[in-house]
Amino acid sequence: MKLDKVQKFIKEKVNEAGYNRAVIGLSGGIDSTVACYLTVAALGKENVLGVRMPYKTSSVESLSYAELVIRNLGIDSRTIPIINIVDTFVEALPTMHLMRKGNIAARSRMIVLYDLSALYKGLVIGTGNKTEELLGYTTLYGDSACGINPLGSFYKTEIFNIAKALNVPEEIISRAPSAELWENQTDEGELGFTYKNIDKLLSFLVDKRYTIQKCIDIGFEKDFVLKIAKRIKQNTFKRIVPEIYYSNGNYDFVNDKNWLTDELKSFGEEF
Amino acid sequence: MKLDKVQKFIKEKVNEAGYNRAVIGLSGGIDSTVACYLTVAALGKENVLGVRMPYKTSSVESLSYAELVIRNLGIDSRTIPIINIVDTFVEALPTMHLMRKGNIAARSRMIVLYDLSALYKGLVIGTGNKTEELLGYTTLYGDSACGINPLGSFYKTEIFNIAKALNVPEEIISRAPSAELWENQTDEGELGFTYKNIDKLLSFLVDKRYTIQKCIDIGFEKDFVLKIAKRIKQNTFKRIVPEIYYSNGNYDFVNDKNWLTDELKSFGEEF
Repeated sequence: MKLDKVQKFIKEKVNEAGYNRAVIGLSGGIDSTVACYLTVAALGKENVLGVRMPYKTSSVESLSYAELVIRNLGIDSRTIPIINIVDTFVEALPTMHLMRKGNIAARSRMIVLYDLSALYKGLVIGTGNKTEELLGYTTLYGDSACGINPLGSFYKTEIFNIAKALNVPEEIISRAPSAELWENQTDEGELGFTYKNIDKLLSFLVDKRYTIQKCIDIGFEKDFVLKIAKRIKQNTFKRIVPEIYYSNGNYDFVNDKNWLTDELKSFGEEF
Repeated sequence: MKLDKVQKFIKEKVNEAGYNRAVIGLSGGIDSTVACYLTVAALGKENVLGVRMPYKTSSVESLSYAELVIRNLGIDSRTIPIINIVDTFVEALPTMHLMRKGNIAARSRMIVLYDLSALYKGLVIGTGNKTEELLGYTTLYGDSACGINPLGSFYKTEIFNIAKALNVPEEIISRAPSAELWENQTDEGELGFTYKNIDKLLSFLVDKRYTIQKCIDIGFEKDFVLKIAKRIKQNTFKRIVPEIYYSNGNYDFVNDKNWLTDELKSFGEEF
């Protein structure tokens, strides 16, 4: 567990973005808690703003666990309930369903975080782990929206170990993971498989680049492998920037860190 | 002007996403109008939903020009005012400023469009042109959020020509471009330069990959070139996915269209 490298990543990227500070949404769950602990270790507690954004479906425990994180770390915090905000969307939109409402809540939180980012001059720190990024178990432009994502290299099951190493309170580590976008939602219930099994499969399918057939051959159930593989493919759109129609070659080079950088510096321009 | 290729791009990408239909926000401005005309040509008028999302700062003309587009093309439409939505955010958030409010409006429109995308089962069509993408003259997770971006290869000045070729109403073509995120906002006023000059510079700096010095040598003002170059660099974050901390190599290959595709097909899986 080389957590010092993650901390270095956070510090470097926050500074590259022109900030010293960070803004992070705290759900009371393990991912945002771990991201917050790492961010505080990277930037110092005086440079981190923790934001609680409860909705009707948020449990009382979630709010108090987030409070525990804020107190333990000694960081600044704000609580912005999103109940009225989500309700106003629901009133404006036709015949609402559970899943759509969940996405509206996740995206409303993004708006709040990005607004506080502008106000507080802090980079929004993402809290998505490798398992949910791969499965696309996120809301596009919602919880997946961030300035940088320090946890994206760690499977959910690894996050538990990191949490222990960071002395995250045991009650936060032992909770059943849930996005709480609706009542009684749990990740594993919704995904249909345990994180333990998913992560084990992903370590072969993704990290070792086993074929689907080989995963089946070594003992994973065919249905399970196919479902997970399909899910990864179907959610590619959440992991890329929108495709652009290019008439004359693409211009990705403009996103290259080095393009024009030295030349601008030679003109005395900092950015 | 090979517009048939853009239309083909739209049709292919909408189908790849598993849709036949598209959802598009209509501001009454030239970009969303052109994107809508192209989308209707690609998918048929019965498969396009035009969405008007007026705010207090939207002009009466904008609403009626969007109506003109809807009528001319004969598409389905919805009007979802975002006044109450933005006001509810403003009430919940501390000491609001003009620019932050503008970003909240742009992001609220994203939420409305993505909700209607889920309801109508249509892909959100982006309306950002190459000039604004390069300058980062967009709201991250706001107007830049989309499923695909058919205009991303065309400079703003080219959009005017495309609009003429598509027989877009003259009154829409001749308006001063404005995001209307606040009153009396015009793009060129805010950017500090005309689109004509910006696009001319970009064609050298980006398409011909001239150095800054060479741009100055051929007659562009030094200050102008430096400002635009800096702006492109400073807004790189709006054109990329959030950087992930990678402990053991990255896994971009999972976003490759071909990865696992043939194998899943050999198992009879469509996705």
